Amino acid sequence: MSQKKIHVAVIGATGMVGQQYLSILSGHPWFEVTVLAASAKSAGRTYGEAVRGRWHLEKSVPEEFTGMMVIDALDIKTVKARADLVFSAISLSPDDTIKLEDAYASEGLWVVSNNSAHRNTPDVPMIIPEVNPGHLAVLKDQRRRLGKGAGGIAVKPNCSIQGFVMTLAPLYEAGWVPSNLITTNFQAVSGAGYPGQASLDVIDNCLPLPGEEHKTMTEPLKIFGRVQDGRIVQKEDLRISAHCMRVPVIHGHLSAVSLGFAGETPGMEKVISLWKEWMPLPQSLKLPSAPLQPIHVFSEPDRPQHRLDRDIEKGMAAAAGRLRECSVLDLRYTCLSHNTIRGAAGGAILTAELMTHEGYVTSRR
Amino acid sequence: MSQKKIHVAVIGATGMVGQQYLSILSGHPWFEVTVLAASAKSAGRTYGEAVRGRWHLEKSVPEEFTGMMVIDALDIKTVKARADLVFSAISLSPDDTIKLEDAYASEGLWVVSNNSAHRNTPDVPMIIPEVNPGHLAVLKDQRRRLGKGAGGIAVKPNCSIQGFVMTLAPLYEAGWVPSNLITTNFQAVSGAGYPGQASLDVIDNCLPLPGEEHKTMTEPLKIFGRVQDGRIVQKEDLRISAHCMRVPVIHGHLSAVSLGFAGETPGMEKVISLWKEWMPLPQSLKLPSAPLQPIHVFSEPDRPQHRLDRDIEKGMAAAAGRLRECSVLDLRYTCLSHNTIRGAAGGAILTAELMTHEGYVTSRR
Amino acid sequence: MSQKKIHVAVIGATGMVGQQYLSILSGHPWFEVTVLAASAKSAGRTYGEAVRGRWHLEKSVPEEFTGMMVIDALDIKTVKARADLVFSAISLSPDDTIKLEDAYASEGLWVVSNNSAHRNTPDVPMIIPEVNPGHLAVLKDQRRRLGKGAGGIAVKPNCSIQGFVMTLAPLYEAGWVPSNLITTNFQAVSGAGYPGQASLDVIDNCLPLPGEEHKTMTEPLKIFGRVQDGRIVQKEDLRISAHCMRVPVIHGHLSAVSLGFAGETPGMEKVISLWKEWMPLPQSLKLPSAPLQPIHVFSEPDRPQHRLDRDIEKGMAAAAGRLRECSVLDLRYTCLSHNTIRGAAGGAILTAELMTHEGYVTSRR
Amino acid sequence: MSQKKIHVAVIGATGMVGQQYLSILSGHPWFEVTVLAASAKSAGRTYGEAVRGRWHLEKSVPEEFTGMMVIDALDIKTVKARADLVFSAISLSPDDTIKLEDAYASEGLWVVSNNSAHRNTPDVPMIIPEVNPGHLAVLKDQRRRLGKGAGGIAVKPNCSIQGFVMTLAPLYEAGWVPSNLITTNFQAVSGAGYPGQASLDVIDNCLPLPGEEHKTMTEPLKIFGRVQDGRIVQKEDLRISAHCMRVPVIHGHLSAVSLGFAGETPGMEKVISLWKEWMPLPQSLKLPSAPLQPIHVFSEPDRPQHRLDRDIEKGMAAAAGRLRECSVLDLRYTCLSHNTIRGAAGGAILTAELMTHEGYVTSRR
Repeated sequence: MSQKKIHVAVIGATGMVGQQYLSILSGHPWFEVTVLAASAKSAGRTYGEAVRGRWHLEKSVPEEFTGMMVIDALDIKTVKARADLVFSAISLSPDDTIKLEDAYASEGLWVVSNNSAHRNTPDVPMIIPEVNPGHLAVLKDQRRRLGKGAGGIAVKPNCSIQGFVMTLAPLYEAGWVPSNLITTNFQAVSGAGYPGQASLDVIDNCLPLPGEEHKTMTEPLKIFGRVQDGRIVQKEDLRISAHCMRVPVIHGHLSAVSLGFAGETPGMEKVISLWKEWMPLPQSLKLPSAPLQPIHVFSEPDRPQHRLDRDIEKGMAAAAGRLRECSVLDLRYTCLSHNTIRGAAGGAILTAELMTHEGYVTSRR
Repeated sequence: MSQKKIHVAVIGATGMVGQQYLSILSGHPWFEVTVLAASAKSAGRTYGEAVRGRWHLEKSVPEEFTGMMVIDALDIKTVKARADLVFSAISLSPDDTIKLEDAYASEGLWVVSNNSAHRNTPDVPMIIPEVNPGHLAVLKDQRRRLGKGAGGIAVKPNCSIQGFVMTLAPLYEAGWVPSNLITTNFQAVSGAGYPGQASLDVIDNCLPLPGEEHKTMTEPLKIFGRVQDGRIVQKEDLRISAHCMRVPVIHGHLSAVSLGFAGETPGMEKVISLWKEWMPLPQSLKLPSAPLQPIHVFSEPDRPQHRLDRDIEKGMAAAAGRLRECSVLDLRYTCLSHNTIRGAAGGAILTAELMTHEGYVTSRR
Repeated sequence: MSQKKIHVAVIGATGMVGQQYLSILSGHPWFEVTVLAASAKSAGRTYGEAVRGRWHLEKSVPEEFTGMMVIDALDIKTVKARADLVFSAISLSPDDTIKLEDAYASEGLWVVSNNSAHRNTPDVPMIIPEVNPGHLAVLKDQRRRLGKGAGGIAVKPNCSIQGFVMTLAPLYEAGWVPSNLITTNFQAVSGAGYPGQASLDVIDNCLPLPGEEHKTMTEPLKIFGRVQDGRIVQKEDLRISAHCMRVPVIHGHLSAVSLGFAGETPGMEKVISLWKEWMPLPQSLKLPSAPLQPIHVFSEPDRPQHRLDRDIEKGMAAAAGRLRECSVLDLRYTCLSHNTIRGAAGGAILTAELMTHEGYVTSRR
Repeated sequence: MSQKKIHVAVIGATGMVGQQYLSILSGHPWFEVTVLAASAKSAGRTYGEAVRGRWHLEKSVPEEFTGMMVIDALDIKTVKARADLVFSAISLSPDDTIKLEDAYASEGLWVVSNNSAHRNTPDVPMIIPEVNPGHLAVLKDQRRRLGKGAGGIAVKPNCSIQGFVMTLAPLYEAGWVPSNLITTNFQAVSGAGYPGQASLDVIDNCLPLPGEEHKTMTEPLKIFGRVQDGRIVQKEDLRISAHCMRVPVIHGHLSAVSLGFAGETPGMEKVISLWKEWMPLPQSLKLPSAPLQPIHVFSEPDRPQHRLDRDIEKGMAAAAGRLRECSVLDLRYTCLSHNTIRGAAGGAILTAELMTHEGYVTSRR
């Protein structure tokens, strides 16, 4: 591993996901946070002041960050001077996000982004390290496009797909062919940031989330796509239908899945053993943030549950359970993933660890 | 209509559903509550005392009932002496429920039950008055089985199917053939009665309800079944798969439905007009508790919602919305029904109104 | 009563309180809503469009308003042309609120306001019709100040004091002297409007409301003050201390009160009979929105409760209960009031009814 | 410290508090859990089986306990044979609790109890180790009463007083004299165990807890009492008044306190420095479960909050904040304590550590 720590900038550091980044990066063995950036209105204040009354995590602000000065995210020169790697979780319009992330990358920085802006860009890989590490291959072409001296950009998928995509991967890898998936998502309020979801919407109520459904149905097709001519080509023989609802829960997105296969259907014991024994790349590489076991399987009929199971392996593992037959498709089950950890900051950090291990991200110091 | 009011006994009057019965029956034009019955431990007290600290409705106890004495549900003689019709919502074992309801009916009483015990009895009709009023025909054979002088028993289906079953009926009636349905249910806590669902299960959490799923998948098959030789024969060409979850909501069960058709699929405008224009028997008969419009259709992308829409038409109508295409089956949508009103007491009262109109239930006074 | 209906403008009609106004004013015997006004960005659309996705009441939009065009609140000429009386619930800065409300009044309109801006103006009466109807006397001096042809302005107090102020009034009227009061408030989220309180603040959490405490401690002093030289002089011999917290409840503010008296302390039976028998002016005048009984007293040890008791008398009555001795002061009890009905729109409407009955507000048509 | 680990029995191991005991005792440096006991109906099953579907903590069952056999709590012989120290959290009638705890102690076992049964026994110390460690002195007389060879019994106070009692202690120690205290408690549902508080009581609602108030008002008087003739004599010059309410929060009891002093009132800066600098016995002894700082003081106007601050120092510290003047008494503030950790299992473990350090509890092995 690189002996010098990678210097890291967190962009959008004062928001919900930014807070989660700092909570996870505190004490990270490879990465050292050297830049906290946010919108102009937070810039020029210490981080402690900037998040006063806006800190929403159960753990308090890591001490090393409270006195650090927040800079303007648009001050690319300073970011470049102090950091090698950028975690981008700033809230801008899609166009402005693309412009900003491209600017970082063009200046030689590596960018791992939680924003949706670049998810449809064919040469920007959308990575779940356990599922499609090979998609990093398109970075080569992307960098050529961005120009000489460029770093590169990878993105995280939407938090709403994190759980069920992980349950499909070991099935594909073992030769079964999931082809039809209907998911109904029970999504937590922290997915909307702060202030985010109004309390009037989720006390004694659940709220439809039409805006989440398109992402949930299309992003997995890119993740399970193939690399061809320096671009990701979407998978064609998988159809996904999604109902997304906000529920009165702080953290954790749960998917109630019905799944159909092309060709033969694996037996339930087979599925369970494939899930339990799955040992993909981040686990075999023992990346620092990789959960020991990416999927924890429950046999109890009433698990997983948001409150009890979202924090498994520090919120980095998925929880799956309630596997049973589906009278319409083939199988049904539920799975759960922590949306601001595995589904956002933690997932991006694991991606950056993979990119560091693969030699993309290096210390320039 | 009968000029004398039907005398009514509410069995299980102190429970959640029993409370809802009294709230709806207060001032009913055809029915007069003359018996409040419950388990032996509530018997011998006034209703006001019996529900002190256990009343959970937003409306307070109707005044005419507070001073009425609660009797033991097992005191069949007294029930018979004072009532013509029994609403049965008592919590007993299935065997004891069947024994009690049969005893009432054998004594000449008419029984409409919220209990699940008799739902699988082939000559006991499970009625949603808008959907399968013709199933009352099996009462004739049932009464023959119960013996000379018997009344008869009809049951309500489980509250978890009320919403989506109503959305299917007008499609069938118009000649389309729903054949595959996957529903994920967001079910309210009042469905479990009081004390019922523990708060630790539903604060910052949702809870799997494996016990609700079998009922949700099988009961519609009886409701859409056909009468043959004095029994209901289940529908065979409809497959239903259900995920049931408890959510932190007081009232209202919402179903997120994906629906597939055998043969042609109706267009979305067609479905909406069938829902809006549906005018089944209870509406054309103008039964007192029938909602003017059994299905209210929403065009807003974020409706229906539990808190805002469960009380439509006093909780007796279903709310449907979010109709859109399903990439796996054909269509998807959500629908909502008030679980303790339409899905329990109100639905049973409407059934009793239908049975009264059809001449089954009459006043013996 | 006036034979012609008073024409009424609701300013801030699209907000939470504005919605509540329309819900209550629909079918009002004296008032007819002729103007719906809001900020410039809602102006020019029908009311139905303007509140699409922003309607948060359990009852749906009254039909007569859905097609009505929303106008700009700053268009004073149009408001004047079409209305006699203005209900002001718009969200502006205090200075802009004062400017707008003064402008309405100077043009001859009568204004009843939910805004806090004018609460400290000594010649603007802050009215709870059951408690201080005599304070309307200062309107005479206020109108002189506002200039020739002016109408006048009255305001509602903050929703956080509505419950406990009503419990004190009958005690004062009977000659007892409450002098020390400590209240801890359990305040509902609808008090913050929409989107208002973030869900992250109130799921599995309660939130301190420092900004509500000053109002809660000082406004009752004006309400119990005396008229002198055309102004309200604050009561001096009452000290109030308040802790305000937001709780995960949709509607209803509950106060846990400890109360001390100067001089003798009334016995608990005395307090209860004073509360029960209180029959102040709005009740003896039978104003249309006056609850039959302004304070409903509970003897159950676990009442009042937000969900069960906030809607008493359509949300216009206060609920009091749990009266017991206080080992530090003299008595303690809890009381509850619906914050967006009695504590906001409904209370203002009752004030306008009183002003109409007293001859201040008249139809100019 | 004793070199051999103390063998520990957890009685009532399957309940909410019992689960918390095991979660904290897993890996404890001084104590080793050798007995898991519960009611007869759980006995004879492994712990894993016994809590299946009943485990309610965010951390999962510590692995070392899942296979351990649960025994009957009434099997005193086995408990005695395997343990030195008993943590008693079983749910029995007060009489049966006293009988059982006396039986353990008479057999030579040391008992630290979460039950309320013995709290009024004058020679049973009710201990908060930071506040009244000297009360252990009465154990000598208690053991004489219990008979030759007896161990002894200490109890934990009710979770509803944990927070505010800790805020008073450093004031007393510095010579100030708190004499009047009014607290309104916002208590979490986990305080009622499982299934405990019904969800219908706390969704969109808060629930009065009359049964908690007497304990809250009287137990501090024993804790601040003095030892005289082998018994605790209650403090007489402190008056406490309490309003207790259940709020829709999983963990954490928050008290909104108004406090009056006999004699001089300390300034707010003084109070804050006394709280911050308080370093009582458990901290100077560095007992394993003692928080580094028993009271964490917040300066933010909106802290402490249940969700954000209950877990400070693993749930063992109190959080205090919002100190401001009270217009009726002298000062007001809020304080928060984790009810099932510091207020139950964790507090009892800290008491046992103190008793071990003081030489009462020893290993007999």
